[in-house]
Amino acid sequence: MQRITPNVQYGDLAQLDSPSNKTYTILLLAGGQLQTHRGVLNHDDLIGKPWGSQVYSHLGSSFYLMPPALGNLLQGSRRNTQIMYPKDIGFILVTMGIGPGSYVLEAGTGSGVFTTALAWAVGPEGHVISYEVRPDMQNLARKNLEKLGLENRVTLKLKDIANGLDESNVEILFLDVPNPYDLLEQVYAAMMPGGFFGCILPTANQVSRMISALHRNNFAFVDICEIMLRFYKANPNRLRPTDRMVAHTGYLVFARPFLPGEAPPVIYPDINKEEPPVESEAE
Amino acid sequence: MQRITPNVQYGDLAQLDSPSNKTYTILLLAGGQLQTHRGVLNHDDLIGKPWGSQVYSHLGSSFYLMPPALGNLLQGSRRNTQIMYPKDIGFILVTMGIGPGSYVLEAGTGSGVFTTALAWAVGPEGHVISYEVRPDMQNLARKNLEKLGLENRVTLKLKDIANGLDESNVEILFLDVPNPYDLLEQVYAAMMPGGFFGCILPTANQVSRMISALHRNNFAFVDICEIMLRFYKANPNRLRPTDRMVAHTGYLVFARPFLPGEAPPVIYPDINKEEPPVESEAE
Amino acid sequence: MQRITPNVQYGDLAQLDSPSNKTYTILLLAGGQLQTHRGVLNHDDLIGKPWGSQVYSHLGSSFYLMPPALGNLLQGSRRNTQIMYPKDIGFILVTMGIGPGSYVLEAGTGSGVFTTALAWAVGPEGHVISYEVRPDMQNLARKNLEKLGLENRVTLKLKDIANGLDESNVEILFLDVPNPYDLLEQVYAAMMPGGFFGCILPTANQVSRMISALHRNNFAFVDICEIMLRFYKANPNRLRPTDRMVAHTGYLVFARPFLPGEAPPVIYPDINKEEPPVESEAE
Amino acid sequence: MQRITPNVQYGDLAQLDSPSNKTYTILLLAGGQLQTHRGVLNHDDLIGKPWGSQVYSHLGSSFYLMPPALGNLLQGSRRNTQIMYPKDIGFILVTMGIGPGSYVLEAGTGSGVFTTALAWAVGPEGHVISYEVRPDMQNLARKNLEKLGLENRVTLKLKDIANGLDESNVEILFLDVPNPYDLLEQVYAAMMPGGFFGCILPTANQVSRMISALHRNNFAFVDICEIMLRFYKANPNRLRPTDRMVAHTGYLVFARPFLPGEAPPVIYPDINKEEPPVESEAE
Repeated sequence: MQRITPNVQYGDLAQLDSPSNKTYTILLLAGGQLQTHRGVLNHDDLIGKPWGSQVYSHLGSSFYLMPPALGNLLQGSRRNTQIMYPKDIGFILVTMGIGPGSYVLEAGTGSGVFTTALAWAVGPEGHVISYEVRPDMQNLARKNLEKLGLENRVTLKLKDIANGLDESNVEILFLDVPNPYDLLEQVYAAMMPGGFFGCILPTANQVSRMISALHRNNFAFVDICEIMLRFYKANPNRLRPTDRMVAHTGYLVFARPFLPGEAPPVIYPDINKEEPPVESEAE
Repeated sequence: MQRITPNVQYGDLAQLDSPSNKTYTILLLAGGQLQTHRGVLNHDDLIGKPWGSQVYSHLGSSFYLMPPALGNLLQGSRRNTQIMYPKDIGFILVTMGIGPGSYVLEAGTGSGVFTTALAWAVGPEGHVISYEVRPDMQNLARKNLEKLGLENRVTLKLKDIANGLDESNVEILFLDVPNPYDLLEQVYAAMMPGGFFGCILPTANQVSRMISALHRNNFAFVDICEIMLRFYKANPNRLRPTDRMVAHTGYLVFARPFLPGEAPPVIYPDINKEEPPVESEAE
Repeated sequence: MQRITPNVQYGDLAQLDSPSNKTYTILLLAGGQLQTHRGVLNHDDLIGKPWGSQVYSHLGSSFYLMPPALGNLLQGSRRNTQIMYPKDIGFILVTMGIGPGSYVLEAGTGSGVFTTALAWAVGPEGHVISYEVRPDMQNLARKNLEKLGLENRVTLKLKDIANGLDESNVEILFLDVPNPYDLLEQVYAAMMPGGFFGCILPTANQVSRMISALHRNNFAFVDICEIMLRFYKANPNRLRPTDRMVAHTGYLVFARPFLPGEAPPVIYPDINKEEPPVESEAE
Repeated sequence: MQRITPNVQYGDLAQLDSPSNKTYTILLLAGGQLQTHRGVLNHDDLIGKPWGSQVYSHLGSSFYLMPPALGNLLQGSRRNTQIMYPKDIGFILVTMGIGPGSYVLEAGTGSGVFTTALAWAVGPEGHVISYEVRPDMQNLARKNLEKLGLENRVTLKLKDIANGLDESNVEILFLDVPNPYDLLEQVYAAMMPGGFFGCILPTANQVSRMISALHRNNFAFVDICEIMLRFYKANPNRLRPTDRMVAHTGYLVFARPFLPGEAPPVIYPDINKEEPPVESEAE
């Protein structure tokens, strides 16, 4: 993750892109080999080359030797569960203010894709605490973190947060669990008032339950959204979107714990009101 | 941007949220005052309170005292130009691998909204170089950075990159200018092969020109996308999207410079089929 | 709605478009006058002109004299309630097979916007039955239909369908009411098995309740969707979407009544997995 | 397309839906047979049954006997080319006022999917003229129309409209050809001023060229849009969109021919203007 030198070195993560857009992400080791259906590449032959070079397999197929993009690293993680997408991850980082030096708590770890993104974003000065109840998932996440050398930035805990969290005054806390609405008492107890809470939920039913639970548990400033990402075909003379796209990953819900005072904030002011008429767009 | 203490201190950035959802972002100073249409709050009265507390103006109006979200800080910047949105910024950070310790080059600075996001994301160990041709915009950006204490992470340059860039081997470079397709020779010369290039463009015509220019200038792996963000009304019993939304901010274009070899990568395999090349007629 | 002659006649509906895109829809009558903030136009002066002509107010402002588009007629209806949009109407017509000669039942009438679209689509050989409980709404709808000369194609009924419908073996039935899930027993009794049922619902909570109710009442082949319509600015050199758009009008739900047999169709095969049934808590 | 009787008759189009959602659309004939991988159904056994009944193959598999939806009929047409989708067709019908009694001109016919929708919508009192240059496509379209008994509502012409159209004063004209911008002189000559013109274009480049061509050829009131249709999974306890969706079919362009006067209408008033800043959605 640190800045790279212009020439490839042992220990670098590298990405080999074939013209057919198949991408291989590898850790360069003395004596290592990459086997592809277009032939074999020896790691030793790649060392010292400038990044961005064209390199060749023993069958003569060409590949571009590139430093890996974060998106590729996240997608390259082995996983057993539904993952979070870069479109959602980027928005969560910015909305919750997760950056260099942040101290972030997460549950559950799952296969560690989001944990990896968090560990990357908080940098060497930050830290991530991640709870998980399934040992197999935790092991998978640990391996995924180790592959990228990020394991020192993360404390993996094998505990059910339904029994409470060990931490207190946590500023940033994210839940990727099926029932976040059942865990808000524990979450509130662990968080600093005024902190940033977020979760991702695949269904509208869960979002409804979550809003009610946030209200009961002294969370305010609730924001709910979804992000749609559409790619375009990169043909300058025939510019158009791709034929198909991802229609849904999850609803993002953000809220902030507060200290209850005399005048509770209005969370959903439009409740029980008629929907206002929607005027048509005329431009 | 650093981790905050549970209690408010002088020098903290604070956000005061009224129940009507009007938000004020202020820097807490001895003797400071916030004037609102709901009354006055003295900074001194806020010091030492726990974050998340309810506080009151001299007219008795209540506000929540919260640490500001990054999104609020970005939106709070004074600006003269179209800004970049959190939905786009988050995706750019993740896609281009901009994080703690990154060294990023940007042009143009504009009002500094994206510069601020970059300075925040690279952390104290990273650095941002930002080019701008208009002195008034550069001054505005400097003030916006200073308000958040991020000015030391950014080198502001008053230069037209059409005349070339001072840097070389830059790994990450982003253009937010009207004509990036005219500047790719200069950009390529400044970048490390294998690095990450990106730009944002409001119109489809610009995207078409950009794809052609990237092809001519040894950039490959072109990705084009747009991000749609839809908010929901936070009513648990009447969950539905808001009535209106932002329909468009800009198209995001990503590409990577490579070292030309014998077998150029296929960028757009379907070119030259059916349609004659059409550059837009006048711009 | 019938085919028009190339020259404007008394009794024609006409649309006057100013360059500023303000549109007036009028019925041309002997001695009639259109008052605009750009001056007055006498209906008599417009008779005999070819459609598509430029005409002038007494102040010299120019207007284009056009036959009205259906979309304009629907938007021109006076209304007191949330209306249905052309994007939704067109999809409903095609999905439910509403066309020339169709016999369609609707509840409630509301301000008659959708009733008008139905009356237009079924033609002189078809018919629309429309139920409404509020006399004021029914009167408004009647006036809107009369303005377009479509009142003979519609039977307006002032009745609550909760008490049952007068019709049976109805092939096409659409509900635009707040609680369609409470009325499915009555709807099923009125419909021909194999017919086409549809409704529009603004909230996700209503959709959830509707799916359950359809299942209990022998409706199958449930389809749920939403339609997003995005306009573009018509500038050939700066092609891009408009800045803002309508984010949501309603969810469309379609289903078909069947005769219960031995092997009930599987409506939602993944029910009872993972999540307990959650009805929204209060409505 | 006419209203159906409650009981199935010879000559009816019928749809057989299996629980696995595989749908067969057939014309019921004496002695006819439907072969499925779940067994055989004899047409004669279906006659006289009420619509909506459950029927069984010789292997005991159950099917629902339903009148076909228009969407099914359009999708069931054999085709060699990209088709138009119900989401686009419905919006075109409503926007261009295509309904009972309409007289519509179309080019090119293609496989006749849109021709079929037009023939259905104009009813027995309306008519469709459809131009095509490829005899094989015209034959395919004729067969698709005959299958639905709609051939008498359509005049198929084997001619290139680049050489001019036989008709004049046409009120409604739609182009589904790759180069509509090259044909506007011919189209304008055939149309009634004030009429409704539309086309569908897959790429943004074509849209840009089209806007310019419309401007040069006395078409005004240009509207450009795209329609996104997203389906939901019909599970009441886990309501959420499907995982993937169609991202793009085509851009719809609508315009209206006018008689040139002294003051030409402003087609794209925002040309050469700065884009206005886009304010953020805050609700």
